[in-house]
Amino acid sequence: MSLESELIAWLQENLPTGPRLDIGLGDDAAVFSGEGSGKQVVTTDLLTDEVDFLIDEVQPEQIGHKALGVNLSDLAAMAARPVAAFVSLVLPRKGTASCAALDLAIGLYQGMLPLAERFDVTIAGGDTNSWDGRLAICITAFGETTDCGPLVRSGGQAGDQLLVTGQLGGSILGRHLQVEPRVHEALLLNERYELHAGIDISDGLALDTSRLAMASGLGATLNLPALPLSDAASKLSEKDARSPIEHALSDGEDFELIFAVPDDEATRILRDQPLEIPITRIGELTQQPGLWQQDATGKQKPLQPQGFEHGGQA
Amino acid sequence: MSLESELIAWLQENLPTGPRLDIGLGDDAAVFSGEGSGKQVVTTDLLTDEVDFLIDEVQPEQIGHKALGVNLSDLAAMAARPVAAFVSLVLPRKGTASCAALDLAIGLYQGMLPLAERFDVTIAGGDTNSWDGRLAICITAFGETTDCGPLVRSGGQAGDQLLVTGQLGGSILGRHLQVEPRVHEALLLNERYELHAGIDISDGLALDTSRLAMASGLGATLNLPALPLSDAASKLSEKDARSPIEHALSDGEDFELIFAVPDDEATRILRDQPLEIPITRIGELTQQPGLWQQDATGKQKPLQPQGFEHGGQA
Repeated sequence: MSLESELIAWLQENLPTGPRLDIGLGDDAAVFSGEGSGKQVVTTDLLTDEVDFLIDEVQPEQIGHKALGVNLSDLAAMAARPVAAFVSLVLPRKGTASCAALDLAIGLYQGMLPLAERFDVTIAGGDTNSWDGRLAICITAFGETTDCGPLVRSGGQAGDQLLVTGQLGGSILGRHLQVEPRVHEALLLNERYELHAGIDISDGLALDTSRLAMASGLGATLNLPALPLSDAASKLSEKDARSPIEHALSDGEDFELIFAVPDDEATRILRDQPLEIPITRIGELTQQPGLWQQDATGKQKPLQPQGFEHGGQA
Repeated sequence: MSLESELIAWLQENLPTGPRLDIGLGDDAAVFSGEGSGKQVVTTDLLTDEVDFLIDEVQPEQIGHKALGVNLSDLAAMAARPVAAFVSLVLPRKGTASCAALDLAIGLYQGMLPLAERFDVTIAGGDTNSWDGRLAICITAFGETTDCGPLVRSGGQAGDQLLVTGQLGGSILGRHLQVEPRVHEALLLNERYELHAGIDISDGLALDTSRLAMASGLGATLNLPALPLSDAASKLSEKDARSPIEHALSDGEDFELIFAVPDDEATRILRDQPLEIPITRIGELTQQPGLWQQDATGKQKPLQPQGFEHGGQA
């Protein structure tokens, strides 16, 4: 049996089906039932060995988790409810130093399945290939908007406060693999509060903030002393010449969410703290274009939108 | 500007938007409007240099055409109407012998766009990456069923006649790149006639017929003298020791459609010949399991389901 057939046999045993999946594995395409009024939200991310992970330093399960996690983070950034995911693999034909190609593939799926179950995502199909090159994994995730509609980047207004979930910086020490997509957080906030715009931090707070601001036709000021710093940002800072704040601004792969919300709504959210993770006010959208930093004295100067130039959706 | 940013800029200039695309490039995900009653049909295919094409022997436009074409062929095999496609690329950082990475990417899209326009598919987003490895391109296509429902592999019944569109064999001489997805053909046949099951020929007539039969819990007999042979099958046969029929059975990448239809309906279709390409009766589904060949004398013997073990959807 070929690698591909063996993997399909494993998948047919091990992939749960979802209530809305009419046709899953084993046909030319998957067929789903829609849920009436919701719009469809689709995102795709392709991860590769050496760029997004180092295959000899991590477990296949961690790669699988990350590959699905970054896609769910994109759905979270749209305040969409996840529905299904499609997984395409190109496997190194001879496997890796520590595992055969089939075991690698199964490990990838075993990393995805717990996350898929937690977020009620059906892994509904995909495509499996092998070659002499290194591992690449492409996931397309599919969700739908709630009655509150999608949360886009372009809805920000001048004077909107910028809020961020969780803590930032130093993801390279491990958090970049243990992606915790903020799906429930985004759905809850979008349902209970008036949110104008949102984006997830994949390429760095500074760069992703400037993307949200530009999509809204505005600028943004970040209040540097207010940034919620992760322990990893401090730890990394001890090893290099960069401050924890610099790490928080540009490390990327935090997979936290930035929201632009009206001033009074921001006050309400900060008072309520309705999530299990902190929400912090980190700045605001401004008529003045560009990205700006504010220090403890309130002084402003330009801030370079540094980060990992990944490109995001497109 | 990074390669990714440059490509996004090009895409924003050059990708048409569709009437149902609420949010396209430039956000975390794309947002679509559904069309009421239709179910969602999703397929994904990942193509790689050296396996699916040889980058130094073809134009980027041909690769782009093929990558989208094979996905549309999967939608055709489900009798689904295409809606949108999402394109993820991993580009060789230094480009190819004849073009830079950005030109390669633009060439890929330029190959997709005419096909997308012909089939009313919106290219709605994707993800662009580069690495030291070779080109891989992953497309996820998204369609919806019509009122006639999806055409699945598993609906075949014993005694159903097997029909095939077009001509088979020898696709390696060029047709494997010039994929002509049989979308309109599938929609027309599914609307006007009672079709029980369908599949597209990606891995070879013998292998894909056996897949359809197995999914239906049946066997199949192929009537070898009846197979519609392409000129390319004959041409290839002159170069090697294999007959045109062998090429038609196992070459793969014909991207024609096999249908299982009730006997009287098959007669009607063959009499009407409602398509611009021929439809030919090539065999039937049988209670007897396995794949069988029938020669001109009517004698039956087992037929090996040879072809390219790709795996298809999964």
